Amino acid sequence: MKNELLLNGEPTLLLDINKCISNIKKMAEKAKRLGVSLRPHFKTHQSTIISDWFREYGVDKITVSSLKMAEYFADYGWDDITVAFPVNLYEIEKINRLAEKINLNLLVESLETVAFLSDNLKAHVSVFIKIDVGYHRTGISTDNINFLEEIKERIDRSELMRFAGFLTHAGHSYDVKGRDAIINLQHGIVKQILKLREYFDPVCQNLMVSVGDTPTCSVAEEFSGIDEIRPGNFVFFDLKQSQIGSCKTSQISVAMAVPVVAKHEDRKEIVVYGGAVHFSKEFILDDKGNPVYGKVVHFKGDKWVDTDDDLYLISLSQEHGIVRGDEKSVKKIKVGDVLLILPVHSCLTANLMKKYMTLNGDIIERL
Amino acid sequence: MKNELLLNGEPTLLLDINKCISNIKKMAEKAKRLGVSLRPHFKTHQSTIISDWFREYGVDKITVSSLKMAEYFADYGWDDITVAFPVNLYEIEKINRLAEKINLNLLVESLETVAFLSDNLKAHVSVFIKIDVGYHRTGISTDNINFLEEIKERIDRSELMRFAGFLTHAGHSYDVKGRDAIINLQHGIVKQILKLREYFDPVCQNLMVSVGDTPTCSVAEEFSGIDEIRPGNFVFFDLKQSQIGSCKTSQISVAMAVPVVAKHEDRKEIVVYGGAVHFSKEFILDDKGNPVYGKVVHFKGDKWVDTDDDLYLISLSQEHGIVRGDEKSVKKIKVGDVLLILPVHSCLTANLMKKYMTLNGDIIERL
Repeated sequence: MKNELLLNGEPTLLLDINKCISNIKKMAEKAKRLGVSLRPHFKTHQSTIISDWFREYGVDKITVSSLKMAEYFADYGWDDITVAFPVNLYEIEKINRLAEKINLNLLVESLETVAFLSDNLKAHVSVFIKIDVGYHRTGISTDNINFLEEIKERIDRSELMRFAGFLTHAGHSYDVKGRDAIINLQHGIVKQILKLREYFDPVCQNLMVSVGDTPTCSVAEEFSGIDEIRPGNFVFFDLKQSQIGSCKTSQISVAMAVPVVAKHEDRKEIVVYGGAVHFSKEFILDDKGNPVYGKVVHFKGDKWVDTDDDLYLISLSQEHGIVRGDEKSVKKIKVGDVLLILPVHSCLTANLMKKYMTLNGDIIERL
Repeated sequence: MKNELLLNGEPTLLLDINKCISNIKKMAEKAKRLGVSLRPHFKTHQSTIISDWFREYGVDKITVSSLKMAEYFADYGWDDITVAFPVNLYEIEKINRLAEKINLNLLVESLETVAFLSDNLKAHVSVFIKIDVGYHRTGISTDNINFLEEIKERIDRSELMRFAGFLTHAGHSYDVKGRDAIINLQHGIVKQILKLREYFDPVCQNLMVSVGDTPTCSVAEEFSGIDEIRPGNFVFFDLKQSQIGSCKTSQISVAMAVPVVAKHEDRKEIVVYGGAVHFSKEFILDDKGNPVYGKVVHFKGDKWVDTDDDLYLISLSQEHGIVRGDEKSVKKIKVGDVLLILPVHSCLTANLMKKYMTLNGDIIERL
């Protein structure tokens, strides 16, 4: 029994530090090569210890998706933080506290929010306008130049707000598959950004355009008109990213260790202690359109490696997970074994697990 | 701005105590009427304060799905606990600690696990064999009488284990829709249980059969051969249960309060601060086969009520939620409003939110 992989005998999120640091290094080097600034999104790892590894590669500014995260990293000494989420009016006190202390960059997409900030801010902030480059979750279309100008002017009129530029998130890159599709999507984004700059560069000093999502930042090479990238998930990657084409499965730096509690050889199924409260219910679809919640990997030497034994996490309830596979692979597994499973969405899995265990057994805490 | 609905200005899980207690009362009365014992599953609420409300309706034994939960409730004074999850060998120390202190009931479905317990137990436990009544997640089929007998005999031979009976979970009741379908399913389960009893009653003193899932326990009236029920989700209910037919939406006792951070009237969409890390990614499908992650309700007097304004949470990313609805309903909502949203799966939402706020503003902590 590989007891050393389980913290307190329970499902445990393992972190391969070597893979993680290699992911960070690669992205930092790419940003340098492309001449763009790297402001990584920390919503995936949410850990001060992991944040130090970014510092070693020259990162001195970060992105978060909540004010709670901003406070957590500001308390640890990060002093240039973008909250890449539309301002929540109910958190104005947190905004004011942070703005007193650090370079705080906020995100807006409505006149109401700008007016509210104008009335309620007590310290200087920089403000980005969210641009919708095709994901259609939030943001203003680049076609809507008049409205963008109106918001910018309203920001300019405010004493405590500085218009910083435009921020995009190409979340629709999560819906494509393959490097060519990502590159193609990035091409369209760059076109929109260049159009935007054509209009705003002449009327704006130091206009900054910030983009971010792991697929385009991992794969694309064309970043004309872009000043800053904000990928986040790449620190761990996951099965979803590997399906999209952002990474190889060998780059995924987290894996869940879960104990086998039952076995149903007739159904070629293994029951593990590891459910929706550990993995999250995020899934990808396999070639046949069936949901996949994770993939079993195996230790080889001092790290886990992806093999072709075809064992997938096919179903999750609150605490149970069902792994199904080919007859031979299932036969080898017994009650009391520990399985290692690559998660589908590392951000959500890490959020549920709340801590990481390194392959040396060290515990890394997070928010 | 209804600031009083948001704890720290962030997404908040509200609990309507009246609805919750009414759900508990109804289930306790039904168990009494049916002559079955109620051993509610506490995995949904995981709160000692809510556990007290069950005591008031005569409940003195409970079900949990992990040893962590068992320890939490044992520390609070619950002294008869069934862990309705196949024994995880790696938690034998917790099992022994609990078995010293309370009446601990465990669940097995393999000879390996029984042998392990036999070798490693240090105090008396009662042991149920898990029966698969058609869900095919865990358990042994009632057709497999020889194997059931073999496990029972192995338990009987052990000094510290007492064979308690059979335990089932009809999780496939979550896949049916409508009261008739649930009643039909329960009919099939009762048939299997009666067959099992026919064989084992003559050779077993005080054989207990324990069943549990919210749909059958809420709807069915036929519990022949059943001694104990273990529903859990009914304490809160949720949209999934309402779609199955276990409850009306008016019985759902939890709702998420989330701030509106953006609005896209052209797409009839509202962006809320409330994402997968708050709701979970569990969804149901609407009539057209589109995923639904929640439904907006409104305050009327001192409680929320379901209206026909047709606003649904249709998409979730890590922190964002997208609510879509008809033109009129969307028009009324503005940035800075607070929306109330019924969750699809209250167990997972509560697990993420970690606490409840009552409509009086009191905070109820949980594990």
